[in-house]
Amino acid sequence: MTDPVVSPARSWSAEIALKIQFYDLDPMQVVWHGNYARYFEQARCALLDSIGYNYPEMKASGYAWPVIDMHVRYLQPATFGQDVIVRAEIVEWEHRLRMQYLIRDASTSLRLTKGSTVQVAVSLESKLMCLQSPSILFEKLGVPEPL
Amino acid sequence: MTDPVVSPARSWSAEIALKIQFYDLDPMQVVWHGNYARYFEQARCALLDSIGYNYPEMKASGYAWPVIDMHVRYLQPATFGQDVIVRAEIVEWEHRLRMQYLIRDASTSLRLTKGSTVQVAVSLESKLMCLQSPSILFEKLGVPEPL
Amino acid sequence: MTDPVVSPARSWSAEIALKIQFYDLDPMQVVWHGNYARYFEQARCALLDSIGYNYPEMKASGYAWPVIDMHVRYLQPATFGQDVIVRAEIVEWEHRLRMQYLIRDASTSLRLTKGSTVQVAVSLESKLMCLQSPSILFEKLGVPEPL
Amino acid sequence: MTDPVVSPARSWSAEIALKIQFYDLDPMQVVWHGNYARYFEQARCALLDSIGYNYPEMKASGYAWPVIDMHVRYLQPATFGQDVIVRAEIVEWEHRLRMQYLIRDASTSLRLTKGSTVQVAVSLESKLMCLQSPSILFEKLGVPEPL
Repeated sequence: MTDPVVSPARSWSAEIALKIQFYDLDPMQVVWHGNYARYFEQARCALLDSIGYNYPEMKASGYAWPVIDMHVRYLQPATFGQDVIVRAEIVEWEHRLRMQYLIRDASTSLRLTKGSTVQVAVSLESKLMCLQSPSILFEKLGVPEPL
Repeated sequence: MTDPVVSPARSWSAEIALKIQFYDLDPMQVVWHGNYARYFEQARCALLDSIGYNYPEMKASGYAWPVIDMHVRYLQPATFGQDVIVRAEIVEWEHRLRMQYLIRDASTSLRLTKGSTVQVAVSLESKLMCLQSPSILFEKLGVPEPL
Repeated sequence: MTDPVVSPARSWSAEIALKIQFYDLDPMQVVWHGNYARYFEQARCALLDSIGYNYPEMKASGYAWPVIDMHVRYLQPATFGQDVIVRAEIVEWEHRLRMQYLIRDASTSLRLTKGSTVQVAVSLESKLMCLQSPSILFEKLGVPEPL
Repeated sequence: MTDPVVSPARSWSAEIALKIQFYDLDPMQVVWHGNYARYFEQARCALLDSIGYNYPEMKASGYAWPVIDMHVRYLQPATFGQDVIVRAEIVEWEHRLRMQYLIRDASTSLRLTKGSTVQVAVSLESKLMCLQSPSILFEKLGVPEPL
C-alpha cells in the first residue's frame, strides 16, 4: 500500500532589496503613493527572470502581457534611507497572470505595503487578448497546460 | 398635499484635460501603467481645489490625508499625443475620503481607465488616524456632520 | 531708392502652461530637480508639433532624434499649485537640434529655471548618427538646406 | 634633505550598481533621458552617506543643499536588464558642492553617460544661500576650512 501522491503546492516568488531614495519622497517626507508601482515592477521582473519569461522572452514568444489591473494597499509609510524587501508571488496563471506583492521593512519585517497586479497575454500578431494563458507560460512555469 | 422634499444627491466632481506625453510611454508605445497615479492626482487636486480643501488647506486645518488604497483598472491603452479627460468624483466622505476616477478619450469619449483612491485624515499633532472624517471636511463639502 | 532687404531673424518657439503638481514636489516642498526634464519635453513637443515634426513624423521620416545633452540651471524653486509658463526655442539646427528653455512664473514672470537640450538625427535604418541634420528638418523649418 | 611634502590628492567617490528597469524605458527601448537624474542621485546619496552627511545630517546641521545646476551627456543608450555602475565623485567643495558622475556598463565598462551637479548650502534659518560652504562640510570631508 502506497501513500497517496500529494501534489506539492506550486509556488513562484522572488524578493528584491531596495533602499528608499530621496527622489521618491513627497512633501510629507514619505514615499509618494504612486511610486510603489515601480517597486512592484522591480520584484515582478526579478520573478519573471527567475522563470525565464521576462519582457524579452515574452516578446520573442509572440505575446505582450500588459498590466490590466493594479491594487495597492498602504499600511505604513516608507521613509528616507529605509531598507525594504519587496516580494512578488504568482497566485494565478491559467487565464491571466496575477501576482501579489508585499513590502516589508528589511530589519523589523514590519509590513508596509501590499498589492497585486493582473496581466493578460495579448498576441503581438493578432492584437487579440487571450482568454487563456498561452502554452509558453505553462512551459515556463513547469506545470501541465489545462485541458 | 405636497411632494416629499427630496434631497438632491450630493455630488462633487472635477475634470481636467491632458495630452499624453512621450515621457509617460513605455516600450510598448503606450502609457506605462504606473503613471496613471499622476493623472488621477491631477484630477483629485482640481476637485479638492474646487471645494477649497487642497494640500495647503489640509495642512492648515491640522490634518494630512494620505492615500491608503489605490485601485486602477486599465481598459484601453493611451498613446502618444492623445487628448484625454480625467474625471474625479467624491463617492464617500463620512469616515474616509473615497474618490473614483474615469479617463476617457477627449474626442470619442471611449473609456480608457477607471480607478479609485481612499484617503483618511491623520492628525498632524497626534499622528493618529481619524476614525471619522474631521468637521472641516463636512464644512468644506457643505454637508451636515453625522451625529 | 529702396531699403535693403533685411532677412528677418528666424525663430521657432512654443510656450505651454503648467500647474505645479504635488507628485513633483520633494521633501523640501519644491519641485525635485530631476522633474524639470518632463516640463522641458512638454514644451519641446509643443514646438515640434507646431512645425509638424514631432515623434510620429520623425519616425515616419526615418530618423530618431535622441537627446544627447541636457543642461538645467535652477534659479528659483517652484512650489505647489504654482502656475508656470515653459518656453522652448530652437537655437541651432544645421548639424544638431539645440533648444533652449525658460520657465517663468505665470503671474510675475519671475524666471525660475533655464535649460537646454541637444538632439541629433540617427537613421533608423543604418543606426548611424547624422553629422548634418537631414533634409526633412530644413523642409519642416522652411529654411534652405546649407550647401 | 627631505623630499618635499606632497599633499595627496583628496578624493571622495562612491559607486552603486543598478539594473535597468522596464519602467525607465521609452518607446525607443532605451532609458528616457530624464531618468538619469535618479541614477545620479542614488550614487550621490551613497557618497554623502559615506562621509556621514546625507539629507538627514544636512537638515540636522541647519542647511539644505539644493541642486542648482545639472548637466547630463548621453554617450550610449542603456537598455532593458542592463547592469550598470554609477560612480559619483566630489570635485569641488569650497564654495559649492560639485559632483561628477559616470555610468558604465557593468560587464564591459563601456561609458554610457556622464554628468555633473552643483549644490549650494542654504541656511534653513535665514533662507540665505551661503557664498562659502559651511564649516560642517569641511569637517565631514576631513579637510581644513579655507581661511
